[in-house]
Amino acid sequence: MRIRTMMLSAAMALALEARADEGMWLPSQLPDIEKNLKAAGFRGKAGDLADLTRAPLNAVVRVGGGTGSFVSADGLVVTNHHVAFGVIQYNSRPDRDLITDGYVAADRAAELPANPDYRLRVTVGFDKVTERILAGARGKTGKAYYDAVEAASKALVAECEKEPGIRCSVANMFYGRDFYLVKQLELRDVRLVYAPPRAIGNYGDEVDNFVWPRHAGDFTILRAYVGPDGKPADYSPQNTPYRPPSHLKLASEGVAEGDFVMLAGYPGITYRHRTAAEFADQIQWRLPTSVAVLTDLQNVIETQGKADKDAGIRYASQLQSLKNGIKRFSGELQGLQRSDAVAVRREDEVAMLAWLATRPEAKTLTPDIDAVKALIAQGRDTRDRDLLLGLLASQTQLMRGALALDRLAVERAKPDAERESGYQQRDEELIRSQLKQVQRRYDPKVEKALVTSLLLRYQKLPKAQHLPEVDAVFGLTPAELAKSLDRIYAVTAFGDEAARLRFFDATPAEVGKSDDALLVAARTLRPALLRMEEERKVREGDLLRLRPAYIQALIAYREKQGRAVYPDANSTLRVSYGKVTPLVARDAVAYAPVTTVKGIVEKNTGTIPFDAPKPLLDAIRKGDFAGYADPSTGEMPVDFLSNLDTTGGNSGSPVLNAKGELVGLNFDSNWEAVSASWMYDPRYKRAIHVDMRYMRWLMDKVYPSPSLLTELGVAPR
Amino acid sequence: MRIRTMMLSAAMALALEARADEGMWLPSQLPDIEKNLKAAGFRGKAGDLADLTRAPLNAVVRVGGGTGSFVSADGLVVTNHHVAFGVIQYNSRPDRDLITDGYVAADRAAELPANPDYRLRVTVGFDKVTERILAGARGKTGKAYYDAVEAASKALVAECEKEPGIRCSVANMFYGRDFYLVKQLELRDVRLVYAPPRAIGNYGDEVDNFVWPRHAGDFTILRAYVGPDGKPADYSPQNTPYRPPSHLKLASEGVAEGDFVMLAGYPGITYRHRTAAEFADQIQWRLPTSVAVLTDLQNVIETQGKADKDAGIRYASQLQSLKNGIKRFSGELQGLQRSDAVAVRREDEVAMLAWLATRPEAKTLTPDIDAVKALIAQGRDTRDRDLLLGLLASQTQLMRGALALDRLAVERAKPDAERESGYQQRDEELIRSQLKQVQRRYDPKVEKALVTSLLLRYQKLPKAQHLPEVDAVFGLTPAELAKSLDRIYAVTAFGDEAARLRFFDATPAEVGKSDDALLVAARTLRPALLRMEEERKVREGDLLRLRPAYIQALIAYREKQGRAVYPDANSTLRVSYGKVTPLVARDAVAYAPVTTVKGIVEKNTGTIPFDAPKPLLDAIRKGDFAGYADPSTGEMPVDFLSNLDTTGGNSGSPVLNAKGELVGLNFDSNWEAVSASWMYDPRYKRAIHVDMRYMRWLMDKVYPSPSLLTELGVAPR
Repeated sequence: MRIRTMMLSAAMALALEARADEGMWLPSQLPDIEKNLKAAGFRGKAGDLADLTRAPLNAVVRVGGGTGSFVSADGLVVTNHHVAFGVIQYNSRPDRDLITDGYVAADRAAELPANPDYRLRVTVGFDKVTERILAGARGKTGKAYYDAVEAASKALVAECEKEPGIRCSVANMFYGRDFYLVKQLELRDVRLVYAPPRAIGNYGDEVDNFVWPRHAGDFTILRAYVGPDGKPADYSPQNTPYRPPSHLKLASEGVAEGDFVMLAGYPGITYRHRTAAEFADQIQWRLPTSVAVLTDLQNVIETQGKADKDAGIRYASQLQSLKNGIKRFSGELQGLQRSDAVAVRREDEVAMLAWLATRPEAKTLTPDIDAVKALIAQGRDTRDRDLLLGLLASQTQLMRGALALDRLAVERAKPDAERESGYQQRDEELIRSQLKQVQRRYDPKVEKALVTSLLLRYQKLPKAQHLPEVDAVFGLTPAELAKSLDRIYAVTAFGDEAARLRFFDATPAEVGKSDDALLVAARTLRPALLRMEEERKVREGDLLRLRPAYIQALIAYREKQGRAVYPDANSTLRVSYGKVTPLVARDAVAYAPVTTVKGIVEKNTGTIPFDAPKPLLDAIRKGDFAGYADPSTGEMPVDFLSNLDTTGGNSGSPVLNAKGELVGLNFDSNWEAVSASWMYDPRYKRAIHVDMRYMRWLMDKVYPSPSLLTELGVAPR
Repeated sequence: MRIRTMMLSAAMALALEARADEGMWLPSQLPDIEKNLKAAGFRGKAGDLADLTRAPLNAVVRVGGGTGSFVSADGLVVTNHHVAFGVIQYNSRPDRDLITDGYVAADRAAELPANPDYRLRVTVGFDKVTERILAGARGKTGKAYYDAVEAASKALVAECEKEPGIRCSVANMFYGRDFYLVKQLELRDVRLVYAPPRAIGNYGDEVDNFVWPRHAGDFTILRAYVGPDGKPADYSPQNTPYRPPSHLKLASEGVAEGDFVMLAGYPGITYRHRTAAEFADQIQWRLPTSVAVLTDLQNVIETQGKADKDAGIRYASQLQSLKNGIKRFSGELQGLQRSDAVAVRREDEVAMLAWLATRPEAKTLTPDIDAVKALIAQGRDTRDRDLLLGLLASQTQLMRGALALDRLAVERAKPDAERESGYQQRDEELIRSQLKQVQRRYDPKVEKALVTSLLLRYQKLPKAQHLPEVDAVFGLTPAELAKSLDRIYAVTAFGDEAARLRFFDATPAEVGKSDDALLVAARTLRPALLRMEEERKVREGDLLRLRPAYIQALIAYREKQGRAVYPDANSTLRVSYGKVTPLVARDAVAYAPVTTVKGIVEKNTGTIPFDAPKPLLDAIRKGDFAGYADPSTGEMPVDFLSNLDTTGGNSGSPVLNAKGELVGLNFDSNWEAVSASWMYDPRYKRAIHVDMRYMRWLMDKVYPSPSLLTELGVAPR
């Protein structure tokens, strides 16, 4: 009778237990934490997971910006509907709307080729190359250190990619301590086999984004093909299914609350091991400042858009992206404040440094750690200016164009390999297309108001943050700023597309001599921007050199605490483990960790995004869930929630049960977990997965594909 | 570890148990259901609750449109902050903002008199008068029956109110089966003793309206005063506290999930015992049609308001009330559909009638029941027209004014007692003030567009629903309608306030001869409107006469099922009982039934309506909850949720524990329960109460009033 007490305290106990579940582990680390894995419920051998080029982890692949996994010997791959959405869209035509209707290939001949630039990558090598990367950097500092690491990386990649069909990259692990050469087989013929209708795969869309409870069937099945010689090949009818080195087995049963789960995938980026000062900067300065500055820009666009509808339409997309940024930054800030992240990280670091001071290695580590702290503190001196001037380029159209063309003219005078990244030959097409897009996204009043909003903030900064070139162009007072902008925008030819493209086609010398007011302004600003870039590279080079000391201290301190340290996420393959876990999101609000088809009916309004297809609603009404429903409740599951450690890039990651069988696909996080890129708070960090029972039921009863189920090893019931 | 399963199934079990908890019982019925009360956990004697003029129920009073209860021998009354809001507002001045700051009377001299029209009524008599009411009606039918009941009621009330300080009314119980004379002592000197700040009393305001989990401290303490002779008196410094016949005792402990609770109050109106046909009409016609028609009107105002900002402002309040209506009707519709109310009620009625057919009383009851069904079916013939023409008066300003003045001129020619209710001398001031208000709420374009929206629908109705007078005024086609409205609104003088008031002051003859276009239209429409009124009264009279047969059958059928029947709510004192109950609102969403102060901090944004006062936030941070926190969790409660059967009018109702001690004040329902006026669905029907522990903690630790706590019998801890 005391549900509340029972519920909250059980959930709290689970949450506390879950502290042990933080971590995006390198497969090679798993044997070291085997005891924890076993304690959490894993029933396999950690050693079997240690090598990502062997089964089962070599079944986990990169696909279309997310993660996928092989699920049959003939190259079937399962991933998210949203990860394969481009493929579905590419194959849709007015008379064959696969987005709306979904797709069930009748046989292999009916499998539809993906867009030609769609790629699937199988990791075939993952080797430590720290020595080769750092050999040339040792003894250097600042930008020289940075450049040496860059040069060694480029050389290694070039050498590795000599093998046909292979793509390589160098992964920086533990902030410059270790480097790995990642070698991937790149498959270029990927085909669409099975996709649910959009109203299943993306049920709830933006409204349900970041929302739990969720009711989306966010999965799609693809198949990888190779040439008749078994090697990667462009699409051809002669190609045959790729035989992957291994594939995952679909579980015959599902999971329930408290069950062990694990996940493998390619999380993008996290900041968990940043210093306490960087946490404080993020929470006390960067997030609130970004919210304030972007909110000002939002207000500028909204005010101007109200007065001039046409201008409003031109800036609609920029407005939406400002709103998204503000929402995300606010969510991250809220979450980090709720987790008291500044204090938690600071106390942890203070304790670590106090412990380090008692150890012999302090003699070598402490000077480097002090230097890291000094570099981070130094960045603070110009952070407001750096943020505002960064936005000056990214939030404008004409100004951005002039700055890009001025810089391009400088870089074009160099051999291509020596040009700054972003201004090489391969980048020119992008610059050109941005110059063209201006026409639909620009209004002189609005751009002047945006620049004004940013530069009024700049003008108020202390003198030490000022740059003489910026002051020269925009003046020191609001009146001077207004006068300067009025003059520049009145006379510049950049408002005209033909003029912009003429500048793009002009020689560096012509651009350098132009007296267009906006180009003159960009030319005046250039030395300041180059100085800022140089300073950034010096700092980054030194951080790359020094930060490993901090990481080494952290690893040693954690070892003393009995804990292992995973490297921050960097788009390499990681494994996390945890439990199917409810969420107590707010006072008196508890979310169960498994949703059911009843929720689809409850949410359904008949209009996008809650417009479940009739066959699905009929099947739910019919209630034929035998073999798929949860045996204890009789309910048909849809999605489930876990405390697995994930971040962007984990879309499509396979979720495995204690026996290593596939039970779900990761596809989203809850809103409360937006701050997890900095801190894993076990009370709120959750990941959202589509339940493989729902996928199988759809494939059996709603949009049947018995042959596919049989190939997946789970024949229709 | 299986929280979800545990949680849902336990909640479901609770919900099923709760089926027995439906009911707004007459106190006199309680001894009949004593077994149920005891089984639910009540520890007193049902007989002690049977007489609402004896303790403890005579401590429950009507106050300011809601319910209150005496809580001290010296006349302290506790009710909701929103029920006493007018008193707080009346006592606020620019230099003394009691709304923002709240109020703690330092002593009795500092207790502030309420607005002079604020009333508190203590029920002192509740007698069955069915015989006296129906004696003159027997043998009559239709309007004659209706008029006889009206006349007998008026006579009884007039006789009863001869006693000074007494207000009387006749309550129709079970749809004309029983009548009661309610006699109430009316106290006219009520004073403000203790009110929390608005940001506590109404924390969350509109955003949290109908929302659970809730965090409002929605209470205020008043005191009733009488003249030196102990009789009701207007405010005077010489008055002394009223000594109520009894008062409720504050519980020293609180409640937790599953605990028995009961509530006494004055629920306004319910339709639970309407016929299956009326349920079907409500769900299949009235609610969806009202939503459609009102949405059209909303669109009219929004479109016109966009084109003309000034007009938009004039119609802002009407727009808000349309939106509220649409939201409420939609919520009711959604709820009734979710409860499958049409089918549930129909099956129940079919079973009842089948059973009745086997009983001897069928001979007398069945013909009346058939007649009821026929009358209800008959109302369906003109329901669209009746709805639209009703809105024609209520959603316009000038049109409403002209219709009222035309009718008033007719009624003014009669002796006051014979005038139609709404047009008697006592109503004239209201009509006059509405005529004045027009100025701030009217724009000719908008009014014409609103009338057009309604009449275009009318024009499309089948011929049988048309009225010749309406067709004569507004024409038969959209073109004729536009022409007619353009003509009328171009020439009428009603747009001018002075002209309207001149018509109000004119003699009936002058009004009857006026050639103002709008008055001429009203005069032309009058015979149609009078016919509609007459037909309505005939039908209502017959329903009043016949419906008791339906009720008698229902009561007999329920008795056979082992269940008692409570009369539908009619603003008389009722008692309901139930449990502190969680809510499983949607798939995977469970709400605990007690909120805590942690939730106030979580919701707080620092801006209205989530701007908890600093003293409250400080006290929460300090955490001095000793003596008030839940002993098992250590958490400080704020509000709690029960399955008690309530409806509008129950605001401020005391919630009592198993020993009859005060543990909470009712103040709202959850959104899912909007449909409960028609059907109590145990899965979703919940009532929201402020926890008396929160009130006491605020009065002890945050805005202290030790003397008041002592008077309440719960001295500071």
